[in-house]
Amino acid sequence: MSEQQSEQPLRNSRNIKLTLAYDGTRYHGFQRQQNALAIQEIVETRLAFLFGHPLKIAGAGRTDTGVHAYGQVISFTTTGSIPVGNIPRAARGLLPDDIVVLQAEEVDAGFHARFSAQSKIYEYRIHQSPVADPFLRNYSWHIGQTLDSEQMHIAVQAIVGTHDFSAFRASGSAPVNPVRTILAASCTQSGTQIQFSFWGTGFLYHMVRNLVGTLVNVGRGKLTVEQFSAVLQSCDRHQAGATAPPQGLYLKEVHY
Amino acid sequence: MSEQQSEQPLRNSRNIKLTLAYDGTRYHGFQRQQNALAIQEIVETRLAFLFGHPLKIAGAGRTDTGVHAYGQVISFTTTGSIPVGNIPRAARGLLPDDIVVLQAEEVDAGFHARFSAQSKIYEYRIHQSPVADPFLRNYSWHIGQTLDSEQMHIAVQAIVGTHDFSAFRASGSAPVNPVRTILAASCTQSGTQIQFSFWGTGFLYHMVRNLVGTLVNVGRGKLTVEQFSAVLQSCDRHQAGATAPPQGLYLKEVHY
Repeated sequence: MSEQQSEQPLRNSRNIKLTLAYDGTRYHGFQRQQNALAIQEIVETRLAFLFGHPLKIAGAGRTDTGVHAYGQVISFTTTGSIPVGNIPRAARGLLPDDIVVLQAEEVDAGFHARFSAQSKIYEYRIHQSPVADPFLRNYSWHIGQTLDSEQMHIAVQAIVGTHDFSAFRASGSAPVNPVRTILAASCTQSGTQIQFSFWGTGFLYHMVRNLVGTLVNVGRGKLTVEQFSAVLQSCDRHQAGATAPPQGLYLKEVHY
Repeated sequence: MSEQQSEQPLRNSRNIKLTLAYDGTRYHGFQRQQNALAIQEIVETRLAFLFGHPLKIAGAGRTDTGVHAYGQVISFTTTGSIPVGNIPRAARGLLPDDIVVLQAEEVDAGFHARFSAQSKIYEYRIHQSPVADPFLRNYSWHIGQTLDSEQMHIAVQAIVGTHDFSAFRASGSAPVNPVRTILAASCTQSGTQIQFSFWGTGFLYHMVRNLVGTLVNVGRGKLTVEQFSAVLQSCDRHQAGATAPPQGLYLKEVHY
C-alpha cells in the first residue's frame, strides 16, 4: 500500500459517533493503559468483533479510575457494514453490563469526539448524612457533616467566565495553558443529595475534583465565599483544598 | 462449667438488636455457608472483634445471593462492654463499606430477630426502559418492554389476606405450611422506575420473586387480572411465571 493510499479515507469507510454510559467502578479510567483494564481497551476489543476489524476509538473526555459517565462520546472510522441503528442492541450482547451504548450515529468524516467538542458538563454528587448508604458508596462522596449548599452555590459562581485555573489543576501536572472558560456552575440540594454541575468549554486534569474539594470547605464553614474567590485568584494550588474522591464524578454531556 | 450454668444467661450479658443496610451484590446471601462468603459470616467475624468474644447472630430474614437490605434486623447476646450508642460508629471501621449498621439498641433477653418479628416489608424494583442503565444493573430488574403498572397494581390486590401461596413457592422446596398472610401490596411507577411493595407476616422461600415474575406477565398483557387471581387459587407452581432475578429485591423493614 502506497503512502498516498494510507492517508486517504478507506473506500466505503464510515465515521461513527457513539454515546456511552458507564459505571467506572471496575475500571482504571477511560484511557488505555499498559497494566490495568481501561474502558477504552474493552470497548475497542469488543467493537472489533462487531465491525470485523481492529479499531481505535477517540473519547471526548478522559475519566479517571472510579469516575463515571452518563454521556461519554467516542468516535471511530470503520469499514464494517452493520447498520448504525443496530449498533446499540448488538453492542449490548458484546459489552459487559456496566458499559452501555446509548446512541449511535453516522457523522461527517471530519468529526472527532475530542477535537470537535464545544463544551462538556461534569456533575459531582455528595451524599450528606450521619450514616453512610451502602448503595451509594461507589456513586457519591459521603460526608457526615451538614454542608451549607446555598453558600457553596454562591461561591461557585466565582468560576463562571474565563479564568486561570492554576489553583485547581493537578499538582505536578504537565505545563499546559491553565486558562479555561466555565459557562455555568451550580450547587443544588435535594434531601441528603448535593449535586454540583460544571458546564465548560474545557477542564484541566483533576480540576472538577479540586474545585469540589475546596467548595466543600465553604459548605463546612471553614472558608468564606470571598476566600474561595481569593483561592481562584491566587493561582496557587497550595491555597485550594484536597482533591475530592473520584466516585462522585460523572461526565454528563458533551456538546458539539 | 455445669450444665445448669451454661443454660443460664451469662452474668452481665446483654441482648443487642442491630438494624443493617447492605448491598448484597458481592455476597452469597445472608445465611452462613460452607464454601462462599455470606453476610452472616462477615458480620459475626467483625463484630467478634468489637465485643471481644465469638458470637452468633440471628437474622430476621434470609436474603439470597444478590438480594439487598435497607432494614435487616439481627440480634445476639454479648458480654462485651461497648456502650450501645457507640456500636454504629465502631462497626463502620470494622465492616466493609457495603454493610452498614444503621441503628443499635439493647433489648429484653427474650427478643429474637427472627422469632419476635411480627411482619416484614419487601420491595422489588424494576427499571423499564428500552436501554439498560449501567448504574442500576445490580439494583433492579431491567425490562425493555413497556409494562402496565396500573394493571399490576390491581392484580396484586388478590394476594392481600390469608392464602395458600403454593403457586408462588420455590419449586422443590421443603414441605412447610404454605399459608401466609399479606397485609398490603402495591405497585407504583415513577418515570422509568416501577416498585412493588409487599407487607406480610411471613413469606415462603422465593415467594416475592415468583409473585413479581408472574405479575410482570400481567404488566406485559400476557395474563389478565382474573388469570393472575386464578394462578393464586390453583396452588400450582407450574401456573405461575418465572422467578424474577434477585438484584431487584430489598428487605425493607421488619416490624416487632
